[in-house]
Amino acid sequence: MTEDIDIYGQQVPILIRNARVNGKIQEIYLDGTGKIGAVAEKITDHEAELVLDANRATALPAMCNMHTHAAMELLRGYADDMQLFPWLSTKIWPTEAHLTESDIYAGVKLACLEMIRTGTTAFNDMYFMMEAAADAVEESGIRACLSYCMIDNGDAEKLESEKRAMQATVKNLKARNNERILPGVSPHAVYTVSEEGLRWCAEYAKAENVPLHIHVSETEQEVTDCIAAHGMRPPAWLDKCGVLSPSCIAAHSCWLDADDIRLYAERGVTAVHNPVSNMKLAGNRALPYSEMKAAGVNVALGTDGASSNNDLDMFAEMKTAAILQKFFWNDPTALPATDALQIASRNGFKALGINAGVIAPGYLADIILVGRNPMNVPCFNAESNAVYATNGLAVETTICNGAILMYDGVIPGAEEIMEEAEKAAFALTARAEAANSA
Amino acid sequence: MTEDIDIYGQQVPILIRNARVNGKIQEIYLDGTGKIGAVAEKITDHEAELVLDANRATALPAMCNMHTHAAMELLRGYADDMQLFPWLSTKIWPTEAHLTESDIYAGVKLACLEMIRTGTTAFNDMYFMMEAAADAVEESGIRACLSYCMIDNGDAEKLESEKRAMQATVKNLKARNNERILPGVSPHAVYTVSEEGLRWCAEYAKAENVPLHIHVSETEQEVTDCIAAHGMRPPAWLDKCGVLSPSCIAAHSCWLDADDIRLYAERGVTAVHNPVSNMKLAGNRALPYSEMKAAGVNVALGTDGASSNNDLDMFAEMKTAAILQKFFWNDPTALPATDALQIASRNGFKALGINAGVIAPGYLADIILVGRNPMNVPCFNAESNAVYATNGLAVETTICNGAILMYDGVIPGAEEIMEEAEKAAFALTARAEAANSA
Repeated sequence: MTEDIDIYGQQVPILIRNARVNGKIQEIYLDGTGKIGAVAEKITDHEAELVLDANRATALPAMCNMHTHAAMELLRGYADDMQLFPWLSTKIWPTEAHLTESDIYAGVKLACLEMIRTGTTAFNDMYFMMEAAADAVEESGIRACLSYCMIDNGDAEKLESEKRAMQATVKNLKARNNERILPGVSPHAVYTVSEEGLRWCAEYAKAENVPLHIHVSETEQEVTDCIAAHGMRPPAWLDKCGVLSPSCIAAHSCWLDADDIRLYAERGVTAVHNPVSNMKLAGNRALPYSEMKAAGVNVALGTDGASSNNDLDMFAEMKTAAILQKFFWNDPTALPATDALQIASRNGFKALGINAGVIAPGYLADIILVGRNPMNVPCFNAESNAVYATNGLAVETTICNGAILMYDGVIPGAEEIMEEAEKAAFALTARAEAANSA
Repeated sequence: MTEDIDIYGQQVPILIRNARVNGKIQEIYLDGTGKIGAVAEKITDHEAELVLDANRATALPAMCNMHTHAAMELLRGYADDMQLFPWLSTKIWPTEAHLTESDIYAGVKLACLEMIRTGTTAFNDMYFMMEAAADAVEESGIRACLSYCMIDNGDAEKLESEKRAMQATVKNLKARNNERILPGVSPHAVYTVSEEGLRWCAEYAKAENVPLHIHVSETEQEVTDCIAAHGMRPPAWLDKCGVLSPSCIAAHSCWLDADDIRLYAERGVTAVHNPVSNMKLAGNRALPYSEMKAAGVNVALGTDGASSNNDLDMFAEMKTAAILQKFFWNDPTALPATDALQIASRNGFKALGINAGVIAPGYLADIILVGRNPMNVPCFNAESNAVYATNGLAVETTICNGAILMYDGVIPGAEEIMEEAEKAAFALTARAEAANSA
């Protein structure tokens, strides 16, 4: 693929020739309305405005990153290799306190750029100033479920202001009437949100018919503290507060026991595996994937924020998920490549109610092309190569909702987005450091 | 960097401008004899034939991959997600039995291509038909220590033929008189090589003054079996056979206890961490890095072969090493980014007696340039970004021994190497499958 194109970001009928789909060289027709119109060895009946030769690249459903804090891109590499509490209290929180809306916008623009570059077309985000984040996502051309993150720490007054912030966010995002922007509701975790807060969030998410996104059982401490405070483990406590339901998305979910897994399955909860973050922050336990799969729990995959990863590359995340499951659970057959691709795409889209994650007629045209490079030759098994033998920078073309966002590695405006984000990041940390040393 | 160059593979004086070296924008002068001549903010006294603008890319010492089976590139993705023994006995061994010299050549050519693409200029390999491998390495322009892998399984006759094969390999490689090709000696492991074999290898390596490369304590079973057979753990048994010395390179070294670590330190052994392979094959324990560092053991890094990884990307390996150490040893400060870079480069070169791994005058000019991309912005800390926030495909330029092997992502002849390797791989597995079903 070397020709230039001039239809970036536009939904037009496109025919992709010579792509490897499910082990065969096939053609894919995007119908110009955001959907896949046909997948076949030869498509003759079409009205394509653009015909692309994929040059035997592997076509995969785009990735869906199910747990992120996108704006934290600005703090990538600002502090690493520290104990959790000093890291949060001396580096992350004092800096976050100085974030402005324009910082959030610049950070989310960079996050969207990185996701397009590495083959992700949807993400499930929890942070704040989500109107600025939504502006960035709208412009980028990808999809996001954006949730204001509520933390009340048991303070009734704080809870009221948090409710208002959350309601304002949901209202703003719904008013945009953009199919690519979904509002969500995010109580942070059992140890930062009161019973009243959790109950209100559960009811509010139900009333607004939006996903509820929460951190659950990330650390052993969280489980121990929850038992001490409420006499039960986090999933049971959340269930008592009405939080667990088919629209609940539970990030991390490392420290689950058999009863927790049963409860997730009964309530239809989606769990999000965050292997890199759990390893980097020394979480000391991996999500019990095989047991959860056997119980019928929908498991998806996420990178967490750039501060605890430090990238948003879902290809690297798939590989880490696949090898961490084998290592921690001592089973080289755990989380095979086909499952890794499914948790990274289909299962996430399903949880968000987005009809993507499969390359077949009728599904949304969220598709990526992974080119051949010295890391993924020979191709005995394209799925194995995608999971184990390459990374997000091997993605050549990213299509979201039928529109091409990256072609042959080129994303219009990328340089400017990187410059602006770097400027914002340096100014932010300079402001925070000046204030904190004053 | 967009201009074309016409000096691929040639040692000529080169001035690299505008590179980020140790946190500052500097210039690097390669003196045309394979060495770094100067590193400074401004270099005026030079006779460069080529002046490159690095465009603020990060310059790093090239990677040194200290445990590989390069020709196994041909079996990448052929079989994954299986239990170890069925994987070896039904997939890997029956296919390896059909390998020819031209397969080895094609596989090592692809391995060298992948390494150049991802910033590695030296590797420490253990396999067979090493003359064909050496042909591939010589052509590729990188460095390798190549060792014939001895397996006698206690059979005295086999031991004699293995000795002859090993001697022939060392003789052939020495006769090439190529500074980039080093011969080594590789007894496979304590469970596949007899006491006589181990003793002979130790003496032979000493007599020839070459490294000895061996798998040590990769699995718990290996340790248990060694104690049952010899009444001691693998390091003590190897020491009794004369194997442990400053020229011994011990791959894996997962299941070491405090006595094993003390012995490694006393004997000056280099240990090689192989985190991805250990995770993928469910090795269930991570090399005890912090204890080994505290004891003064030289620890290096390797990818293992493509069948158990499935790539040779040392950037991904650095990240996995850093996060696996944190996770397994439950310490978020373990193996920080600076250490990850050191084990991936300097410590490996040191073990092979190659004066590289540092960007400073007098060192060999084995240097890579990592360009800015959406994954490694902002740049608060180039080392953190290199380890945690990007991967080998972000490498733009690879220089070995003062010669440019990749420039702006372009490696002359790459397409043909990939085509030939894929052809060889498909023909090999077809031959093996036909023979094994006959």
